[in-house]
Amino acid sequence: MPDVTLAPHPDRLLPADPGVRAIARGLLDSVAGLPIISPHGHVPAHWLADDVPFTDPTSLLITPDHYVTRLLHADGAELSTFGVGEGPLTEQQARAAFRAVCARWDVVRGTPVRLWFEAQLVDLFGVALRPSAGTADRIYDAVAAALATEAFRPRALYARFGLEVLATTDDPCDDLAAHARLRDDPTWTGRVVPTFRPDRYLETARDGWNADVDRLGEVSGVEVGDYAGFVRALEARRAHFVAHGAVSTDHSHRDARTDPLDPAEASRLYAAARRGQVTVTEATALRRHLVGEMARMSCDDGLVMTLHPGVWRDHHRPTYERYGADVGTDIPVAVEYTDALRPMLSRYGTHPGFQVVLFTLDETVFSREIAPLAGFYPSVYAGAPWWFLDAPDAIRRYRAAITESAGFAKTSGFVDDTRAFCSIPARHDLARRIDAGFVAGLVAEHRLDEEEAYAVLHDLVVTNPRKAFKL
Amino acid sequence: MPDVTLAPHPDRLLPADPGVRAIARGLLDSVAGLPIISPHGHVPAHWLADDVPFTDPTSLLITPDHYVTRLLHADGAELSTFGVGEGPLTEQQARAAFRAVCARWDVVRGTPVRLWFEAQLVDLFGVALRPSAGTADRIYDAVAAALATEAFRPRALYARFGLEVLATTDDPCDDLAAHARLRDDPTWTGRVVPTFRPDRYLETARDGWNADVDRLGEVSGVEVGDYAGFVRALEARRAHFVAHGAVSTDHSHRDARTDPLDPAEASRLYAAARRGQVTVTEATALRRHLVGEMARMSCDDGLVMTLHPGVWRDHHRPTYERYGADVGTDIPVAVEYTDALRPMLSRYGTHPGFQVVLFTLDETVFSREIAPLAGFYPSVYAGAPWWFLDAPDAIRRYRAAITESAGFAKTSGFVDDTRAFCSIPARHDLARRIDAGFVAGLVAEHRLDEEEAYAVLHDLVVTNPRKAFKL
Amino acid sequence: MPDVTLAPHPDRLLPADPGVRAIARGLLDSVAGLPIISPHGHVPAHWLADDVPFTDPTSLLITPDHYVTRLLHADGAELSTFGVGEGPLTEQQARAAFRAVCARWDVVRGTPVRLWFEAQLVDLFGVALRPSAGTADRIYDAVAAALATEAFRPRALYARFGLEVLATTDDPCDDLAAHARLRDDPTWTGRVVPTFRPDRYLETARDGWNADVDRLGEVSGVEVGDYAGFVRALEARRAHFVAHGAVSTDHSHRDARTDPLDPAEASRLYAAARRGQVTVTEATALRRHLVGEMARMSCDDGLVMTLHPGVWRDHHRPTYERYGADVGTDIPVAVEYTDALRPMLSRYGTHPGFQVVLFTLDETVFSREIAPLAGFYPSVYAGAPWWFLDAPDAIRRYRAAITESAGFAKTSGFVDDTRAFCSIPARHDLARRIDAGFVAGLVAEHRLDEEEAYAVLHDLVVTNPRKAFKL
Repeated sequence: MPDVTLAPHPDRLLPADPGVRAIARGLLDSVAGLPIISPHGHVPAHWLADDVPFTDPTSLLITPDHYVTRLLHADGAELSTFGVGEGPLTEQQARAAFRAVCARWDVVRGTPVRLWFEAQLVDLFGVALRPSAGTADRIYDAVAAALATEAFRPRALYARFGLEVLATTDDPCDDLAAHARLRDDPTWTGRVVPTFRPDRYLETARDGWNADVDRLGEVSGVEVGDYAGFVRALEARRAHFVAHGAVSTDHSHRDARTDPLDPAEASRLYAAARRGQVTVTEATALRRHLVGEMARMSCDDGLVMTLHPGVWRDHHRPTYERYGADVGTDIPVAVEYTDALRPMLSRYGTHPGFQVVLFTLDETVFSREIAPLAGFYPSVYAGAPWWFLDAPDAIRRYRAAITESAGFAKTSGFVDDTRAFCSIPARHDLARRIDAGFVAGLVAEHRLDEEEAYAVLHDLVVTNPRKAFKL
Repeated sequence: MPDVTLAPHPDRLLPADPGVRAIARGLLDSVAGLPIISPHGHVPAHWLADDVPFTDPTSLLITPDHYVTRLLHADGAELSTFGVGEGPLTEQQARAAFRAVCARWDVVRGTPVRLWFEAQLVDLFGVALRPSAGTADRIYDAVAAALATEAFRPRALYARFGLEVLATTDDPCDDLAAHARLRDDPTWTGRVVPTFRPDRYLETARDGWNADVDRLGEVSGVEVGDYAGFVRALEARRAHFVAHGAVSTDHSHRDARTDPLDPAEASRLYAAARRGQVTVTEATALRRHLVGEMARMSCDDGLVMTLHPGVWRDHHRPTYERYGADVGTDIPVAVEYTDALRPMLSRYGTHPGFQVVLFTLDETVFSREIAPLAGFYPSVYAGAPWWFLDAPDAIRRYRAAITESAGFAKTSGFVDDTRAFCSIPARHDLARRIDAGFVAGLVAEHRLDEEEAYAVLHDLVVTNPRKAFKL
Repeated sequence: MPDVTLAPHPDRLLPADPGVRAIARGLLDSVAGLPIISPHGHVPAHWLADDVPFTDPTSLLITPDHYVTRLLHADGAELSTFGVGEGPLTEQQARAAFRAVCARWDVVRGTPVRLWFEAQLVDLFGVALRPSAGTADRIYDAVAAALATEAFRPRALYARFGLEVLATTDDPCDDLAAHARLRDDPTWTGRVVPTFRPDRYLETARDGWNADVDRLGEVSGVEVGDYAGFVRALEARRAHFVAHGAVSTDHSHRDARTDPLDPAEASRLYAAARRGQVTVTEATALRRHLVGEMARMSCDDGLVMTLHPGVWRDHHRPTYERYGADVGTDIPVAVEYTDALRPMLSRYGTHPGFQVVLFTLDETVFSREIAPLAGFYPSVYAGAPWWFLDAPDAIRRYRAAITESAGFAKTSGFVDDTRAFCSIPARHDLARRIDAGFVAGLVAEHRLDEEEAYAVLHDLVVTNPRKAFKL
């Protein structure tokens, strides 16, 4: 098989109809110079705080990105082939893993992984070769050579990407030392904000919960012997996050329910959990109550809530046991928002300090629940299409399903939610192209004036995420 | 910001592809002269019976239309800003509310509210100005001036709109006096039909149910002391509606179940409800039984059933407590039809006198349940996309999801379901345009001959609603 | 009404946009000569084994095809009108039924039934007349004349259709004699494979289950007095199927759950079922366990599992009582796969011998569950859009919903699943056209190179079904 040269078309991902495409191209050009706002993601803060060079192409581009590895696993390869669970890779391991990816490159056809990865190669590393068995080593070498240069250090990339803000996702007990170092570093001009992710502390029947809460007590300096202390400890950690620049909290449980318990019952269940005697049903009730408490705290401290429910984590048990979490075996389940959020929204839905962004992997709630909620409650924003849905056709379905009931103003703007730092520009570029095409379609059908379309696209890229995440 | 002149494009809402658009334009032109059939809606009959002039632009166009006010509320405004819950408005209040709407006009971009409202301004009132802070007063004045003329009295508008029939939605105890006045008025040549909406009488655990049933007994002249009497009273009121021209009943409960109870159990639960001792579970069982009874009655009296399930009414409790129902805080929930309707359809689904039109706000049932049901049962019609779904992209999804399993013949035709009288032509025009575009797409892909496409579009506009609603 | 000449356009079903269409046309041409692979369907094997001529147009084209008769029933006709439940038809009955279909032909506009049926008339029978009251007799006569010729015997049609393999669906107790005759016939060069469909044996609370199991014991020669024997009997029949060329098993229960029971509990429930004392809840638990057992057996004998859950069979009870099963009154219900398959996939999901193809009538699981599962588990394939969904717009939705998370490689290829033998080429042609259009759209948007698009379409037509069904 001869080498295939990558030559990304300037009109890629724009609608095929020539008239619509022409409008979309103009719209896209108009936002080309705007910064990237990344209000939710998983890049480690210490990369930027310490600005250490990346070690090798595989550890940077492949191993941590379960978008890539899951598709290759589905084709029959072991995850370890790609370095997953292998710890730091030798050069030999890294190269072998990279070869294994390139040799199976056909399986990513039609997926956004293909688009993001090839965009990285061309735009970032200047390597215009499609991955294949024949090109793997050349690509590896070129990327490795680039990574050895100053221009590919994390801070240089942050600047090159045009990032205005980058959010991390952090454990409530995290001291946020890397964030502090960045804050206190006079040579650093970017903005990296932590995100408060308390899931593990709210699931009281989970193995290890008691130890985690002990630690929460230590770290916060608050006595967590009873429920009131536990709540105060969480409040203290939120304050710590706010002091380090946090703008939001993140919550990902099986369901989105927010039913409150009366205080005595919450205390009773907490005490049972501390004794290791809470049932699964009780723990679920307590978790739902605590999510509602998070909303109450948001009214006070202003942190935006983001909800990412409806994922069956670690679906394939043997894979979890061997490789741990976040390796591609999380599978979505149906989500319900209308009934689930009613207790929370009846209490806080019109509170001036409260904002909540609703994400979903269950597209059925776009038009049925999220858009109607965001189109009534001033506090509710429709989160961008997330995870499996941050792809061209899925983004189009999202816009088509959300806009007619909620307009553009109540959508969050694109969220990359990625562990793959170098894919951030490609992901935002893809989203901008699809949004430009969607808005151009409205213009072509005379549903929006062209001048307005420019304003809408500008808002989607910068105004909306700033507003939804209080940036 | 300079004024923006509204110049609705003749091809608005038609597909962007030039070839498809040309076909669609021809189709659209072919139905331009057809009447509007509005078999389900919420315009008060007394407007037409009494033909009193409308008071002011806000009370007519804004305050009663929760499609508009909910979006502005989502942007952070109080509903009272727009006159909701304020009673009759002074000229000063009406003008201030109108200004508040115009100043926030950007938030309706991309929604059908924008299209309907601007179409009203241009086509009905001759005001070719986009709402904005700068144009609000001029628009208000022009509309107010128009409303003061004879040409904008309700009956003149009814004629101008080309309405063939307009349905109201009415309480079973309503005396339908306005309908009677219209029927007996020799100068009235239109057709306004009542719709029997018994929801409140079927929810036996509801506050106030007993008082409502007492009144039902008085109005019907039937003793409602026991279950059999209650059923006879409902039958009597249905007969009253039939005598006043009703063609359909309307039902909107949380779910669509129709499980029958045996007569003794129904009697027992009714008696418990009359004593105020029915549980919520029992009341739900009785309501499901009673919906099935409505189907039985429809076989006898010929009234078409329409089902509009799956809405969480008054989701934001504080808004309901301050402003009451129907102000934009109703949020959809998932619906199930296949299992829910089986008891009813096994009994009455092939009865020659029975027809039922299924509406949904949960799009997932379009292809999964409604189209298969309408594609087998002669009695079942797929209701037009409703409420949050009566918008361009949603109507396209509806047609794409329904047609392949149920064809065109088993769809109800467009239903505007509106409280906003002046928006009726714009709503039907939007639906005709989208349907023309959909059918044109089939022609362009050689899935339908062009001659047939003309017949199909004609049917969708007039034949189908006449048949589905027995008009 | 004048006759309408059928002139199928060479570009039918390709996208309307001229640029995309040109790409699609090239793709379509490239697969025109490829064989048809039909790995799941309902054509009887004895038709081909015995090669007996078809009797009349109605018995071949109308009566057994519930896709056709259900739509005419929905228009108000009795199923008996079309020969359903009437047994062998006289010439007079057959002609009258055919006339009744043609007279109501307008109701199939917009459905794939129309496209398939007319394609059969033109391409297979050479009858270029649209069905109508006026053309019914001429079409009937022309088709009847063709059926009397050698060229329309089953084996001749098999060859003419370019079938590479045709699967039947068979009861575990079936002796597969027709398959054996074909296997042993030196003049037969095709491939007809049986499919093991054990549903009735796994539903232990079903009327007649005990008698069926008695027969299973007799046919297998295995004592089925206890649970272990029952399992061995099923294994024996699977071996019998494998020996007759089977490549897959088929399972269609209300849900897709696979929760295992411990052996003692399974034995206890089986014993209760044999005594006729199993409850519905127990029977459901045992059935879910047994579906998991089928997966275990698949790891051993290599038969591919296909799951077709989520249908309410015989929804209209009176129709079932009069006409029996499979006459168009099966209605889909919602399906859940993520949680339901977890027990099975945690055990067997990465077993090298295991493959499972997931079908659905509930489109919501395409992007939410099936694509994520197929994009992680090497054993899982996304089944082609099935039954109500094997139509142009539904196939497009399927590709758009599946591809971005699972790519093309993990999709099964088209499955016609039909009882209407003569419609097989038309069904596969429709699917190829829609897939060509979808892939062309990716090329037009520069999401796939054109050379790759040719490879993808080739794979979808032949490579994928061969791989998914181990052909």
